[in-house]
Amino acid sequence: MNDTDLAFASIGVIGKLFRKRRLSPVELTKLILARIELLNPKLNAYITVTFQLALAQAKKAESELFAPRGRKGRRDRGPLHGIPISLKDNIYTAGIRTTAGSKILQDFIQLHDAPVVTRLLEGGAVLLGKTNMHEFAYGVTSNNPHYGPVRNPWDLARISGGSSGGSAAAVAAGLCFGSIGTDTGGSIRIPAALCGIVGLKPTIGRVNTDGTIPLSPKLDCVGPLARSVQDAALLLEPILVRAKDEPRLSLTGTSSSQKQKFKLGLPDEFFFDIISSDVLRAFQAALHSLCKLGAKIKNVSIPLLQETENAGNQIAWPEATHYHQQAGWFPARAAEYGEDVRTRLEMGTKVSAAGYLEALELRDKFIQQLHLVMADAGVDALVVPTTPISAPLINEETTRVNEKDHSTRALLLRNNRPASLAGVPAISIPCGFTPDGLPVGLQLIGAVTDELLLLHIAHAFERAHPQAVHPPL
Amino acid sequence: MNDTDLAFASIGVIGKLFRKRRLSPVELTKLILARIELLNPKLNAYITVTFQLALAQAKKAESELFAPRGRKGRRDRGPLHGIPISLKDNIYTAGIRTTAGSKILQDFIQLHDAPVVTRLLEGGAVLLGKTNMHEFAYGVTSNNPHYGPVRNPWDLARISGGSSGGSAAAVAAGLCFGSIGTDTGGSIRIPAALCGIVGLKPTIGRVNTDGTIPLSPKLDCVGPLARSVQDAALLLEPILVRAKDEPRLSLTGTSSSQKQKFKLGLPDEFFFDIISSDVLRAFQAALHSLCKLGAKIKNVSIPLLQETENAGNQIAWPEATHYHQQAGWFPARAAEYGEDVRTRLEMGTKVSAAGYLEALELRDKFIQQLHLVMADAGVDALVVPTTPISAPLINEETTRVNEKDHSTRALLLRNNRPASLAGVPAISIPCGFTPDGLPVGLQLIGAVTDELLLLHIAHAFERAHPQAVHPPL
Repeated sequence: MNDTDLAFASIGVIGKLFRKRRLSPVELTKLILARIELLNPKLNAYITVTFQLALAQAKKAESELFAPRGRKGRRDRGPLHGIPISLKDNIYTAGIRTTAGSKILQDFIQLHDAPVVTRLLEGGAVLLGKTNMHEFAYGVTSNNPHYGPVRNPWDLARISGGSSGGSAAAVAAGLCFGSIGTDTGGSIRIPAALCGIVGLKPTIGRVNTDGTIPLSPKLDCVGPLARSVQDAALLLEPILVRAKDEPRLSLTGTSSSQKQKFKLGLPDEFFFDIISSDVLRAFQAALHSLCKLGAKIKNVSIPLLQETENAGNQIAWPEATHYHQQAGWFPARAAEYGEDVRTRLEMGTKVSAAGYLEALELRDKFIQQLHLVMADAGVDALVVPTTPISAPLINEETTRVNEKDHSTRALLLRNNRPASLAGVPAISIPCGFTPDGLPVGLQLIGAVTDELLLLHIAHAFERAHPQAVHPPL
Repeated sequence: MNDTDLAFASIGVIGKLFRKRRLSPVELTKLILARIELLNPKLNAYITVTFQLALAQAKKAESELFAPRGRKGRRDRGPLHGIPISLKDNIYTAGIRTTAGSKILQDFIQLHDAPVVTRLLEGGAVLLGKTNMHEFAYGVTSNNPHYGPVRNPWDLARISGGSSGGSAAAVAAGLCFGSIGTDTGGSIRIPAALCGIVGLKPTIGRVNTDGTIPLSPKLDCVGPLARSVQDAALLLEPILVRAKDEPRLSLTGTSSSQKQKFKLGLPDEFFFDIISSDVLRAFQAALHSLCKLGAKIKNVSIPLLQETENAGNQIAWPEATHYHQQAGWFPARAAEYGEDVRTRLEMGTKVSAAGYLEALELRDKFIQQLHLVMADAGVDALVVPTTPISAPLINEETTRVNEKDHSTRALLLRNNRPASLAGVPAISIPCGFTPDGLPVGLQLIGAVTDELLLLHIAHAFERAHPQAVHPPL
């Protein structure tokens, strides 16, 4: 395997090479660090690269994995042992600064790892660094005014999406084997779709959000970005809070040869009201693959989808503003925010408490309707495009779709908000390319705690609908 | 026993008379209904008197209690069997209108009883009617613009307090043997104090608030008003949600002869900043009785008391407004509210969501500090005056205390808000009279779920510090 093949190999393949001693964790970590040195200046995916720490962790993993059988110190920590990964820079890391992509926190160093980080390090993962992001996770472009824009590996003139844009770019460009991001209204799924990788937002509460800088506590989730469904499952496995006796996230039951019996719901409302023809074409081809795979597609009606479009903002805006107020940053240090984040923090002051309570109530009704519709129709998941457009240009403020201009930000968010509002799990998986060669994402939205079912469907789809994952870097 | 003695007898004494067949439930119910006919035109304590239903329920209780031993149909439902009680008119009763003291709901009839009502009726209680209250429980005077003011049995020119003012007046005047009210910021304790009776606000969540018209769901509680601590315990017993194996609310362990070992905290801050000299004198005499009883009084400092003064409003106002908005009443039917309630509903629209979230956060800090201070000091409860003034005149808007004018409403609320904000239980018990012959209330504030401990302390105090409970009607 050449270096590029190694950089894009799956976590499973790397693990096998380690255990056959045909590759060492230190060797691999050096290879990826070299790629970061080469490509990060172009992509701007990392804010902080932890060269020394990564090598020390790789050495430790190597000594544990490679110690002769029976020798003291030999230890196999499982699938992530020795695997180089990255973390979005709003997740606390002991001794490594956590900037949240902000100027205000540019020198902020926590003494403790977030619980998710502890779990990953216990699993032997090697931390390469902290990834660039939209400032304070409060936006979807990752066009960061303090650390520079993250660039899309498929087209450097374009955004990687956000707010976990650095994580998605790093994963897509082979600058890590997976990353952990956060998603409040699409911040994992949007960049995953725009960068042609897999991103999973779990059920709210299924992954501990302690030790992450909050955006909107009622909606915040932590989840993996990876190049394959299997890799995403391996990253999610150690951080998922599970019920007693709940099975591990094993995908070995899924086979491409075997007909799948999934039943997927295609919503009548909202998701297809605004969509570019290129994305629609890729999505329809993906639906065709799902049908060939044996999945049943059923139309479902969820009328509240239209009404809830603004409810997410009515919750997220004041919660974000409240966090920045109580931290003492807003409005005291308003000048230190990027203009877009500052504007949204100001908008957050204008939401009334009664409006906030109304949005929470609408959320409850929406959750009930969504669950009722899915249960009545007997569908395992809803299937929709992750975003109605492919990656926009950096600084693109409005995007023309079907001869009408729309706010680019609103377009990227719209199909992602419903799962965030309902707190249900959702996964974005690559489902093809536009004629311009930009990736398109397919989103599966599941019922509460159905992460494993979503991974199974996505895994089957991925095998039936393979695509290139190497951007032309 | 003459009729007046019977009307003011304790629930325990009445129960004994029933079981000795020296009094029948029908006889007693008729006696109290006659008192209501005589005195309610003066007091205006009841909005709806359920004459026929009360007699039917009394007859049923009588046939169950008085059936010969061994005869089918004989049944003793316990201490409340055959006891005539009332309910605040914001608690749902099947087939009996629930006005919440409003014009908007003047003809509102629910098909189902609230769960607390079901429990009381299962216990054999006889429902005399629904009591007058501050409109929508949103105020503390019970000066109701639609059903007329509730008058204080100790001085008809004065308010009974509120919002459960009709309940308190009815109990104090011998127009029922107990009542169930609601308390969001003092609505049980304030009228109990002003009418010289016992009122208990339980820990939030300890009594089911389903089937009550909400004011502020984060703060609303349901609890008893009664003429003695023992009676309050008997009314609370069937409606308390208890942990498995939690003991019943039995006060038989408390004896006046035995020295009490209670330790009570006297807060340094807030509660004594504004207080009338008459109330302070009665309170100090009560403290003296507590000391003689063997209770230890310890000064405690809870600095957040000052900061949290406004937090309750920042939570209650928008929650109330939101409820009235979603019901479709506000602002659509603004003209149908009394002026004071309409003004507060308007104020509720002006609280920002960020301010609401800040108040919730301050509440969390306050709860922690309160519990920490109480645990550190080893105190069983805090002891404070329930209200800094005795019953004001009807229509009194400002009250002079120590040569300064204060909003009467704010004065009545201030000592009650802390327990509401913290969600902890609190009981108001009579502790003497002002020189004008107006009752003064002592408030004990306990730790979460310590209702029984509060009742024990209150019971011991009540025996050590007896007082007339018959107003001169």
